[in-house]
Amino acid sequence: MEHSTPAATLGVVGGGQLGRMMGEAAGPLGVELVVSDPTPDCPAAPVVRDQIVGDFDDYDAIRELAERVDVLTFEIELADPDEMERVSEETDTPVHPTPDTLRTIQDKLVQNRALDDAGIPLPEYRQVDDAEDLLAAGDELGWPLMLKAREGGYDGRGNLPVEGPDDVEDALAAVGGAALAEEMVDFERELAVMGVRGDDEVRAYPVTETIQEEEILREMACPARTDTSVRSRAREVAFDVLDMLEGRGVYGIEMFETRDGEILVNEIAPRPHNSGHWTIEGASTSQFEQHVRAVLGWPLGAAERRGPTVTTNILGDVDEPEIASLSGTESVLEAHGAALHWYGKREVRPLRKMGHVTLVDDEASDCETLLSRARALRDELTFE
Amino acid sequence: MEHSTPAATLGVVGGGQLGRMMGEAAGPLGVELVVSDPTPDCPAAPVVRDQIVGDFDDYDAIRELAERVDVLTFEIELADPDEMERVSEETDTPVHPTPDTLRTIQDKLVQNRALDDAGIPLPEYRQVDDAEDLLAAGDELGWPLMLKAREGGYDGRGNLPVEGPDDVEDALAAVGGAALAEEMVDFERELAVMGVRGDDEVRAYPVTETIQEEEILREMACPARTDTSVRSRAREVAFDVLDMLEGRGVYGIEMFETRDGEILVNEIAPRPHNSGHWTIEGASTSQFEQHVRAVLGWPLGAAERRGPTVTTNILGDVDEPEIASLSGTESVLEAHGAALHWYGKREVRPLRKMGHVTLVDDEASDCETLLSRARALRDELTFE
Repeated sequence: MEHSTPAATLGVVGGGQLGRMMGEAAGPLGVELVVSDPTPDCPAAPVVRDQIVGDFDDYDAIRELAERVDVLTFEIELADPDEMERVSEETDTPVHPTPDTLRTIQDKLVQNRALDDAGIPLPEYRQVDDAEDLLAAGDELGWPLMLKAREGGYDGRGNLPVEGPDDVEDALAAVGGAALAEEMVDFERELAVMGVRGDDEVRAYPVTETIQEEEILREMACPARTDTSVRSRAREVAFDVLDMLEGRGVYGIEMFETRDGEILVNEIAPRPHNSGHWTIEGASTSQFEQHVRAVLGWPLGAAERRGPTVTTNILGDVDEPEIASLSGTESVLEAHGAALHWYGKREVRPLRKMGHVTLVDDEASDCETLLSRARALRDELTFE
Repeated sequence: MEHSTPAATLGVVGGGQLGRMMGEAAGPLGVELVVSDPTPDCPAAPVVRDQIVGDFDDYDAIRELAERVDVLTFEIELADPDEMERVSEETDTPVHPTPDTLRTIQDKLVQNRALDDAGIPLPEYRQVDDAEDLLAAGDELGWPLMLKAREGGYDGRGNLPVEGPDDVEDALAAVGGAALAEEMVDFERELAVMGVRGDDEVRAYPVTETIQEEEILREMACPARTDTSVRSRAREVAFDVLDMLEGRGVYGIEMFETRDGEILVNEIAPRPHNSGHWTIEGASTSQFEQHVRAVLGWPLGAAERRGPTVTTNILGDVDEPEIASLSGTESVLEAHGAALHWYGKREVRPLRKMGHVTLVDDEASDCETLLSRARALRDELTFE
């Protein structure tokens, strides 16, 4: 292959923090990014070649994007697969992952059925179109159960635990539309594997432990604090998932480890994912560089871990939206082995992802001490 | 300290590969860069907020830059210290390193005198204004000697070995102007230490071995393949140099290790330097992130090495300028532990720095094998 200038131009639908970190990873490779995003001066804008302002389903914006780039990708599930497919056909610009994969993943019921068909282990689930379906699901799967909007949910939004038959009407109203019900998994911990499909190769990163609170990801630790056998099983499942997906790119595969050490797939993101942010400092090739390489059809990079690595998200600890000003950042900048990532969002909102802190320690044997250090650092940070 | 958006805006006079790599390092920290450079769409342009097109001594461009940023810095010695100082006073924008430091370094005679005054060991030198001076220098320091233009030389340009009295006239004509003559040092190897002055702290990276050919830097290896005692001496000298410099920022300190293990300072760059490119993958904090932190007055990062690291430059292997197209890059992308950096220059010229390849190996005990691997990779790459 040959490198000229630019080495390639990549179009990304979405210009949030994932687009920004893709841009940061693309620069050293000589790859230029153009992003489309509805928010003028989106987080990715200052580090990429250009931003086109347009909604995630805006045909004109996606068409303009496609005309300027070699390959189209997306960093948000709200990207419109139909418009991307149409534009791809019109302009002969490949889209990765494929619009079909995105369609499958966008609808959680279709996603579960596809996983089921491929023999991937996942929680029991039922289609829920009305109260009757939900009551029947409760009878069969037991209460409480997890009600999930089929479309539009992410970061735990659209997911709602339902305690019993009395809560059925309220829950359906809250989720508002077509849904599915899943058995409530009594899990030991949550895990994630970042996998990547290249042109003719697949790779998976070491298994990450993801620590959530109120359905929001707070911390990640790699290696996950679980048995080696569980970790190998999680990677096996991840490779099975990669096998059933179409199109190049990085995929975030979220899983439950049940109390008896079984792995169940929770959901899949067809893009770099929060649970893989530790790879920027902690792995030979970050998930963002890996995604850029993959979608361009370039050789993949090594997906090995350098040493135990922990990441903690910086979330909005405010009650109301306000102009963001995070105090205490000197403690992170001074901390040994710590890296600060600030996503460049002007406004902080309750629980909004504003940045993250990663700690790597080549000398550490596991993540215990790193996790306590990361929590202590995060506790120094506040928007209030 | 507080992080808002942007966390800070940094103005950089010069937007070549050093400005580009500063931009790549600034993104994760939430710092935005604006660069000024005479070449429209300079290498830094695609990864920074904005470029102002203007010469390195263009008052209007530097003034506009200063008005848009919190702190001014530069990535090339051709930046004009007088204009930066004037603009700094007019707009109350600090410049780091200080214009005075830049002035001292721009004139190699003044630089040597300042080093001498501070008791830093360096090769014997003489001021050379005409043939008589050069002949006298040869008598005193012995032939051959090294003739250096006092101003405007970099990357070995402006440096010329003079064999004997017969070559004096030609050498002076070639260097063309005020010069200095230095004794030809019979060195064992060349070394460099990247040092950094922060707000109230100084740090130095581990000693790098720099391998030059025809006065052009080809390869760097860290740790340098020399005795521990030589490495400690080199770091001592680096700290002494940092002590005499004014202003925050990263400094590249180039040195000779003589045959008897003595350290002599060759020259100083008041900016991140080619010999420190290995720090991007090989150190906890890259020299570019370190420079951004330093000039902003933020806490410095750790300057430790991860493992043995080797970098090889990708230089133009062409006879005439042409549109750049480097073949063989897949071999670097596929190589374990290798990172490809492409500077985004459209045109390749003879010996022009077009990119670099870094190899890190946490398991290796020294740089020998890494150097052979790096050379083999570089040999796969050609513009021809």
